[in-house]
Amino acid sequence: MKNFFQLISSQEFLTLFKDFNALEAETLELKHALGRVLAEDVQAPEQLPPFSRSTMDGFAVRARDTFGCSDSEPALLQIVGEIAMGSSGQDLVLQPGQTCKIWTGGELAAKSDAVVMIEYSHQLDEQTVEFLKPVAPGENVILAGDDTKPGQKILAKGRQLRPQDLGVLAGLGLTSINVCRKPVVAIISTGDELVPPEKKPGPGQVRDINSTTLAALIRECGAIPHQVGIIPDNLEAMLTACTKAVADSDMVLLSGGSSVGKRDFTLKVFEKLQDTTLLAHGVAIRPGKPTLLAKTKNKALFGLPGHVASAMVVFYLFVRPLLLQLAGQTKNRELLCIEAVTGEQIPSAIGREEYVRVRLDWPEKTTTPVASPVYGKSGLLSPLVRADGLLVIDRDCEGMDQGETGRVLLFPGRS
Amino acid sequence: MKNFFQLISSQEFLTLFKDFNALEAETLELKHALGRVLAEDVQAPEQLPPFSRSTMDGFAVRARDTFGCSDSEPALLQIVGEIAMGSSGQDLVLQPGQTCKIWTGGELAAKSDAVVMIEYSHQLDEQTVEFLKPVAPGENVILAGDDTKPGQKILAKGRQLRPQDLGVLAGLGLTSINVCRKPVVAIISTGDELVPPEKKPGPGQVRDINSTTLAALIRECGAIPHQVGIIPDNLEAMLTACTKAVADSDMVLLSGGSSVGKRDFTLKVFEKLQDTTLLAHGVAIRPGKPTLLAKTKNKALFGLPGHVASAMVVFYLFVRPLLLQLAGQTKNRELLCIEAVTGEQIPSAIGREEYVRVRLDWPEKTTTPVASPVYGKSGLLSPLVRADGLLVIDRDCEGMDQGETGRVLLFPGRS
Repeated sequence: MKNFFQLISSQEFLTLFKDFNALEAETLELKHALGRVLAEDVQAPEQLPPFSRSTMDGFAVRARDTFGCSDSEPALLQIVGEIAMGSSGQDLVLQPGQTCKIWTGGELAAKSDAVVMIEYSHQLDEQTVEFLKPVAPGENVILAGDDTKPGQKILAKGRQLRPQDLGVLAGLGLTSINVCRKPVVAIISTGDELVPPEKKPGPGQVRDINSTTLAALIRECGAIPHQVGIIPDNLEAMLTACTKAVADSDMVLLSGGSSVGKRDFTLKVFEKLQDTTLLAHGVAIRPGKPTLLAKTKNKALFGLPGHVASAMVVFYLFVRPLLLQLAGQTKNRELLCIEAVTGEQIPSAIGREEYVRVRLDWPEKTTTPVASPVYGKSGLLSPLVRADGLLVIDRDCEGMDQGETGRVLLFPGRS
Repeated sequence: MKNFFQLISSQEFLTLFKDFNALEAETLELKHALGRVLAEDVQAPEQLPPFSRSTMDGFAVRARDTFGCSDSEPALLQIVGEIAMGSSGQDLVLQPGQTCKIWTGGELAAKSDAVVMIEYSHQLDEQTVEFLKPVAPGENVILAGDDTKPGQKILAKGRQLRPQDLGVLAGLGLTSINVCRKPVVAIISTGDELVPPEKKPGPGQVRDINSTTLAALIRECGAIPHQVGIIPDNLEAMLTACTKAVADSDMVLLSGGSSVGKRDFTLKVFEKLQDTTLLAHGVAIRPGKPTLLAKTKNKALFGLPGHVASAMVVFYLFVRPLLLQLAGQTKNRELLCIEAVTGEQIPSAIGREEYVRVRLDWPEKTTTPVASPVYGKSGLLSPLVRADGLLVIDRDCEGMDQGETGRVLLFPGRS
C-alpha cells in the first residue's frame, strides 16, 4: 500500500458502506424493543380491532331508524338492553326500532351499524329514548379490521421502533419481536501523552477525552461501546489490541491519529492487520480530512482525527450512519437536517465541504432558527458544548453572507 | 368538588406545572450519565488544557525567530531536541535561535510560543532546520486554560448531558457527577374490556394497547415506567391501586378515561384520594379535551383520554414536559418545532387548538418538508404509525390552505 493521500468526497465515502450487512437478529420482549430495528417485515396475524366498536358513550342503532329525525321530530326507539364493557355485543340482536346502551370501546350489538352520542339523546323512561339527530351508517364506530386486516404488512423490516409501533404490536398480541442485534464498538485510544480520566496527569500528560466522548456518541445511537483503553504508540501493542478488538466487536474506532505521524502509524496498523482492506484514505471535508476507513469481513475500522471536535464531525457524518446500518436501519441514518438563517458572515475555503459548529436561536414567533458559528480551535471542547449542530457549506462555495439560508445538521441532544 | 367541565388553554395547562419540583440528586459515574440532567452547576476544578499544547506536528519556536522569513530567505534554526509525547516540554528551554521537534498534543518547550508545521520546514541536518513561512505568537498552539479556567462554570444545573459535555467532564477528571433521579411513572389501565397483550381476548374484549404505548413514551423521555396493570372499573379497586401507585412512584397516569362515563369515574377517584387537589378538568385542544390533572404533594396524576391517539398527543404536550421538569431539565422540554408546508387543505374548528397528525416528506434539494395529514379515527393506531409529528392549528384559525407554512412538533423518533 502506497502512502498516497487521495481525498474522496463525503458522498463517495458513504457509498463505501454498501458492502456492510446488518447484524443478525435476536428475539426481544416488546418492552425492551423501543428504538430497536425490525429484522423482518411484520404481518398482522389477525384483524384489529377484532370487532366493530363504539367510539362514544351512547346508543347502538340501526342507522336507518334515525334517518330524518330532528329536534322537532325526534326518532323514538325502544331500549332493549345495555352492552356491558368486555361482554359480547353479538348476543344482543337489534330488531328495527330497537336500540341498546353502549360505552366507548364496547362491541356493537348484532345488526346495529352506528352509535348515537348520549349528548344527542333524550331518555324518556327505562325502555324509551328519543334521538334528535340522525346518524349515518358507520358513524361513531370503528369497524372490525379498520386498523389492520389479517396478513397485512404493518411494519417493514429496517424500521426503528417507536412507541406507537409497539402499541400496534401489543394490540395484535405480538409480545416478542425479531430485531437486529446492537452493534458493539471497540474504542482504542492511542497516545503516549494520555492518561485515563480518573488519573491525575503528570507533566506533559493530559486526560483521554475522546474515549468518553466517543463512548457516549455510540450509546446515543443505540450501540454498545467497549472501551479498550489507551494503547501506547507502538506497532506491536497496537496490532495486538486491534486484532483482539476486531475479534470481539462489530466495529473498531482508533482515536488519536490525526497528525501526519499518527496517521501514518494508523495506516501501518491497518496494512499489517490480517484480511484488512483500506477503503478510504482522507475525505474532502473540514474538519475531518485525515479520516481512514478499512474493512475486515463485515467489520469497519475507522482511523478518526485526534482532535475531539473533528472526531465528532466524522462520527456524525460517517460512523453513526454505518452503525445504524449495522443495527438494521434502512432510513434516517443521517442527522436531521433543518433550515437556518446565518447570524453573521461565515467564510469558507473552496475545495472542501465545511461543517461549521453553530449555535441555534429561535427568535420569537418564528420557527426558522438563526445559526451563529461557535468558533474555537478544533482541539477545544467548550465550543462543542455550546453548539447545537453543524452548518453545511458546500465544496464550491466561498462562504455565506449574513442572513443567508442554509442547512444545519442537528445534534441528537439539545443544548 | 363540582362536576363542572371548565376548559383551559394549553398555555394555562402548562402554567399548572410551576409548583412541581425537580427530584432529588443522585451520584453517577460519567459513563452512565448520557441524557441525564445536572442537579447542580459544575465548575472546572483546574485549567484545561493543563499546559500549552501544539495542534500540529512540527517545530516549537520563539515566534520572533521566524519573523520575515520566506521561501527565498528562510529562517535557519538550531534543533536542540525533541519533545516526546507525554513528557514535559518545560524541561527544554529554548534560547533565541533554537527550536525543537514537537508532535500534535505535545507540551510546548519553555520560552516557545508557536509551532511551525512540518510542511513548512526543511531539515538540513540533525541539528539544523530552515523555515519558509513565519508564524505569529500563539499560532498552531492551544494555550493552557484556553478551554476552561479554574473555578469557571462550565455546565449549568438543569442541563441535559450530551456526549461533548461528558467529554469536558472527563477532561477535567470529574468522573462522577450529581444528576437528578429518573422519575418513576405508574401506568394504570382501566376498562373491563381490556386484557393484557399476551392474552387472547374473549368476545367483547380487546388487548390493552395504551399501557405498552405509554410505557414506551415514558422510556423515550428517559423516565422509568411502572405498569400497574389493568384495574376493573370499580371505585374501591381503583382507589387502592391509585393510593399504592402514588406511594410507589413520582407520577401516575390513568389511561382509559376519555368517555363521559369514564371521565366522571376518574374524577371520583381523584376526589376521594387523600390530599389530592384537582388542577385541571379539560383542556381546549383537539384531540385531548377530556384530560384531567390532579396533584398530591409533588406528584402529578393525569387522567388521560382513552383513545391512544389522543393519549399520545396529551403525553407529548403535557406529560413529557412535566416529566422532564421532574428529571431536572430547565430547557427544551417541549418537542422540537420545525416549519413545514401543508400538502393539502386542512380544515379545523374555531375555539380549540388542533393537533393534526402529519407525515413529513422532504422534496429533493429543499429542507422545508411537506406536511400531509394522516387521517383516521383517534381510536386507530395505523395513522399514528405513519405520522412524523403534529401540525399545530391555532385556536382562532379555521384551517389551513394547501401550501401554507405552519409549525410541526416533531415526534422524537423518526418513521
